[in-house]
Amino acid sequence: MTSAAAAPVWSVDPRTGRRRQRVGTEAGPEDVDRAVRAAHAARDALADRSVRAAFLRTAADLLEREAEPVIATADAETALGTTRLTGELARTAYQLRCFAEDIEEGSFLDVRIDHADPQAVPVPRPDLRRYKIPLGVVAVYAASNFPLAFSVPGGDTASALAAGCPVVVKAHPDHPATSERCAAVLRRAAARHGLPEDVVGLVHGFDAGLDLVRHPLVAAAGFTGSVRGGRALFDAAAARPTPIPFHGELGSLNPVLITRSAARERAEPIAEGLAASVTLGTGQFCVKPGLVLAPADESGDRLLKALTTALGTADAGVLLDARMRDAFLDGARARATLPDVESPVAPGESGPNAVTAGFLTVPAAHLTTGGPHAVLLEECFGPVTVVARYADETEASAVLQRLPGSLTATVHLGDAEATQENGPAARLLAALTPLAGRVLVNGWPTGVAVAPAQHHGGPYPATTSTSTSVGATAIERWLRPVVYQGTPSPLLPAELRDGNPLGLPRRVNGRLEA
Amino acid sequence: MTSAAAAPVWSVDPRTGRRRQRVGTEAGPEDVDRAVRAAHAARDALADRSVRAAFLRTAADLLEREAEPVIATADAETALGTTRLTGELARTAYQLRCFAEDIEEGSFLDVRIDHADPQAVPVPRPDLRRYKIPLGVVAVYAASNFPLAFSVPGGDTASALAAGCPVVVKAHPDHPATSERCAAVLRRAAARHGLPEDVVGLVHGFDAGLDLVRHPLVAAAGFTGSVRGGRALFDAAAARPTPIPFHGELGSLNPVLITRSAARERAEPIAEGLAASVTLGTGQFCVKPGLVLAPADESGDRLLKALTTALGTADAGVLLDARMRDAFLDGARARATLPDVESPVAPGESGPNAVTAGFLTVPAAHLTTGGPHAVLLEECFGPVTVVARYADETEASAVLQRLPGSLTATVHLGDAEATQENGPAARLLAALTPLAGRVLVNGWPTGVAVAPAQHHGGPYPATTSTSTSVGATAIERWLRPVVYQGTPSPLLPAELRDGNPLGLPRRVNGRLEA
Repeated sequence: MTSAAAAPVWSVDPRTGRRRQRVGTEAGPEDVDRAVRAAHAARDALADRSVRAAFLRTAADLLEREAEPVIATADAETALGTTRLTGELARTAYQLRCFAEDIEEGSFLDVRIDHADPQAVPVPRPDLRRYKIPLGVVAVYAASNFPLAFSVPGGDTASALAAGCPVVVKAHPDHPATSERCAAVLRRAAARHGLPEDVVGLVHGFDAGLDLVRHPLVAAAGFTGSVRGGRALFDAAAARPTPIPFHGELGSLNPVLITRSAARERAEPIAEGLAASVTLGTGQFCVKPGLVLAPADESGDRLLKALTTALGTADAGVLLDARMRDAFLDGARARATLPDVESPVAPGESGPNAVTAGFLTVPAAHLTTGGPHAVLLEECFGPVTVVARYADETEASAVLQRLPGSLTATVHLGDAEATQENGPAARLLAALTPLAGRVLVNGWPTGVAVAPAQHHGGPYPATTSTSTSVGATAIERWLRPVVYQGTPSPLLPAELRDGNPLGLPRRVNGRLEA
Repeated sequence: MTSAAAAPVWSVDPRTGRRRQRVGTEAGPEDVDRAVRAAHAARDALADRSVRAAFLRTAADLLEREAEPVIATADAETALGTTRLTGELARTAYQLRCFAEDIEEGSFLDVRIDHADPQAVPVPRPDLRRYKIPLGVVAVYAASNFPLAFSVPGGDTASALAAGCPVVVKAHPDHPATSERCAAVLRRAAARHGLPEDVVGLVHGFDAGLDLVRHPLVAAAGFTGSVRGGRALFDAAAARPTPIPFHGELGSLNPVLITRSAARERAEPIAEGLAASVTLGTGQFCVKPGLVLAPADESGDRLLKALTTALGTADAGVLLDARMRDAFLDGARARATLPDVESPVAPGESGPNAVTAGFLTVPAAHLTTGGPHAVLLEECFGPVTVVARYADETEASAVLQRLPGSLTATVHLGDAEATQENGPAARLLAALTPLAGRVLVNGWPTGVAVAPAQHHGGPYPATTSTSTSVGATAIERWLRPVVYQGTPSPLLPAELRDGNPLGLPRRVNGRLEA
C-alpha cells in the first residue's frame, strides 16, 4: 500500500457506474511480500485451538455489531440490496461460529494412534501417533458475488483460520471498501485475543493476486471466481518450484432435468421455481441453474409458457459491474444466434448496469454433438438459462453424458417416480452423480446451506480439487498429516498422548473412540 | 501390446547386466487407450464393497500361493534377494487384507447426514446426506525399488481398488516380468469374484506413462519415483484440459539430527544403526537417511569412527540397474569433490552393477548458505549418507531451516532430554515437524509399517500432495464427496438411509456415531 506509482483502487457504485471513493492503492510485489511475511510470522500465535475458537466467535460478534456500516458499504458497491446482504452477513457470522465449534470438537485433527506391537505380523509395529497440522499461510481470492460469505470474512478465511493458518486475502475489485472494513473487523477481533493482527492480511490488485500465489511462503490457496482467472492462478500454483494446493471454484452449469412425469404433474410450479432460482441475486450465483432439460411435449410447452410469464415479468436487476453486464449480454446474444435457438424472453439492458432476465430454448439433439452449440454447456453468468427440449429419455441421457462437471445437478421427478426403488429415477440419480458435488431432488440449487454435511464443489471446472468450500470439511483443505514414531510421551503434543487429556475423538489401533 | 513397430520390453538381470527374456512390447497410444477404456468400462463392477473386499483378500491369497515364482522372478530382475522379497510379499499381501478390512468397516466413506431443520437459524436447512464416491480410473506408476509393495499389487493399486477405482499400472522397466506376473494374479483374483479382469490393466514404456496421465478417462494418478520423472508427470496432470489429482512420492533427504547428549551416550550404537539403515536394500529406499547432523566434538568423532568401521566392512550390493549405478557413483563423486567435504569411506564399484557403501562429511556451516554445497541437501539414491558436523545448536538449527521437505525427519536424544517436557528436545521436535510427514525419535526411518495411523508423505518434493501412500488413509486419495439434498429415501444409496441399514460409522447432525 506504499509503492510509489501504484494504481489507485476505487470503490464504484454499479447503479450509476460512478466512483464512490478511493480505497487505497494496488499492492506491488513488496507489499505482497510484506503481507505474506507478516502473516507467516504470526502463524505460531494461532497454535492454540481455544484461542482460535474465541477469535472466530469475536469476529462473528464484531461483524454483527458493525452490520449497519458493512451492509451499507457492500450495498453501495455491489447493488445486491440490503435484504440479501443482511442474510449474507448472518450466514457469514454463523459460519465463523460453526468453525469455532468444529475447532473445539476436534474431529478435524483426525487423530490416529497405533500402539507399538512387537508381536505384529508380518513385522513388529512401532508406536505411531498421527494428527493434522496447519499448512501455513493461505491465500484467499475473494468472489465478486458474495462480498461477505465468500470474501474477506467468508468460508475460505474462516476455515483457514480454524485450521490454524494465517490468511492473506486478495480483495475483489467489485467491493474494495467492504473488504477493507471486513479485514479491519477480523484484525480487531484477533487483537482482542492477543493475536497479531497480521493473521489476516489484505491486498488489492490483479498482479498482487499472481504475486501472492507465487510467494514461497504461501502454502495453499482458496479461490472463487471465473474459469479464466481461476485456471490462470491454478496454473501458477502448479508451476511453482514447490507446487501448492489450489482449491478453486471456477464455473458451473448446474444442469436440471425435468422428467416427463414431473412436467405433467407440476409444469407451472416448476417454471415458477426455476424463474425464481435463475433471477435470485440477478442470476449472479455459482449455483444458478444454467441448463434445463425439459420434455419436448405438451407438458414441456406448458412449462415454457409459465416460464415466459415468470421471467418476462421479473424485475430488472443491477449486475456487479460493467464488465459482467457486457459479458452477460454478449454471452446471451451469441447463444441466441445459434441455429434453432429461440429466445422466448430475451435478456436486455435496463439502465447503466441493469439487465432483465431471460431464457433460450434449443432442441436437445444439438447438445449431443460437439458443434457450435457446445457453448450452451458453458456457464453464462447472470439471469439467463437454457431450456433444452428432449424428445425421449435416450436423448436426455445423451446430453447428460456431454456435460462438464458442475457444483450441482438437479432432477425434478413425478410423485410415483420419487418413491420407486431401483427404478428409472434411481438410474437418473446415478447418471447425475458423476456430474456434480451436490445432487438435488425436486429442489433448486441456489441457496447453499452452511451445515456439517454440506459439500460445495464438483468435478472440474466446478472445482480444481475434490474439496468443498462450504461445510465442516472445508477445514481439511488447509491441513496435512504428520505422524510421530516412537516418541516419548513428554515430547508428544497433548493431542496424541495416552489418556486423551484433551478429550478428542480419536482412532486407536484402528478403532474409532468418539 | 499389439502396435506394429513397438519397442520390445526386456527383463534384465542386474547382477550380470544381461537380458533374461523378452516380456512384451511397449504400449503405443492405442494400447494405452484400450487399457484405460477397458478399465473405465469395468468401474461399475467395483461398486459393491463386499465384492471389493473379497477380491482384495483373494488377491492376497493368490499372491501368497504364487510366492515362489513371483519372488524368483523379482529377485532375478532386481537382485533384491529372496529374504527381502519374501518380506515384501508378506507386507503386500497384508496390505491388501488391511484395505479389505477398511472397506468393510466403512469409515472411509465419511458419511455425514444433516436432517432437514425448517427452524434452523439463520435459514431453514434442507436434508443433506453426504458420502464419498470413487473418482474413476487411477493410473499407478510403479516404483523401481519395491517390485511388489509399491508396484503392481502395491499400496497405490490396493488403495485405489479399495476405493472402487479400476487401475491401469505403468510397469517399472526394472521388473517387467514381475509386473506381468502380479497383474495376472490380480486379474485372476478379480475373475474369481465375477469382476472383469480389466479392473487391473498393465502397460509398459516411458511414453505410455505420459499417454496414461493425459488420457481423458484417467481420473487420478499415484506415483513413486524420482523428482525428475514425477515432476514431469505432475506437470502433465496439471496441464490437462481437466487437471487431475497427482499423488506422487518424488524424493526425500530424510535428515537425522543427533544431539550432543545422544552422541555422548550412544555414539557407537547410533553409528551401527545408521550404517544398517543406510545400507538396507543397498540404500535403495526413499526413506534412507541422506543427511546426518552430528556434533563436531569428541563424541561426534567417536560416532564417525564407528561409522567408518561399519560402512567400511559392509557387504557390497547390486543396484537395480546400470543407470542407477552410474547416477549413484557420479552423485557420490561430485559431492566428494566439494570444498571441505571428506570421504572417510568412499562408495565404490564392485562388479557389473554392484557398489560398496560409503559416507561423506562436511562442516555444517557449508549447508547454511545457498552455495555449491546445496547439492548435499538433495537425495543421492543408493548406500551413501552425508554427515554434517555442527559446532553448536544454532548452527544445527540453521541447517534445519534450509532443508527441503522429506518423508521423514529423525532425532536421536540423550536419556534425560527424551523425558523433559517443554525442553530443548520438544523444541527440536517442533523444528523437525515442518520438514516431514513422519518424525522419529531414537529410531531409523527405513521400515515403513503398514498400520492405520501410518503417514508416508511429506512436504514437496517428498510428495506432490498432502496425502499418504501407506496406511489406512491412503484410500482417501481416490475418492470425492457428493451430497444428496432433499432426496427421497427410496432413491438414496443404502449408505445414506435412515436407520443405518449397513451399520456404518456416520456423523449425524454433526455428531459422530461410531
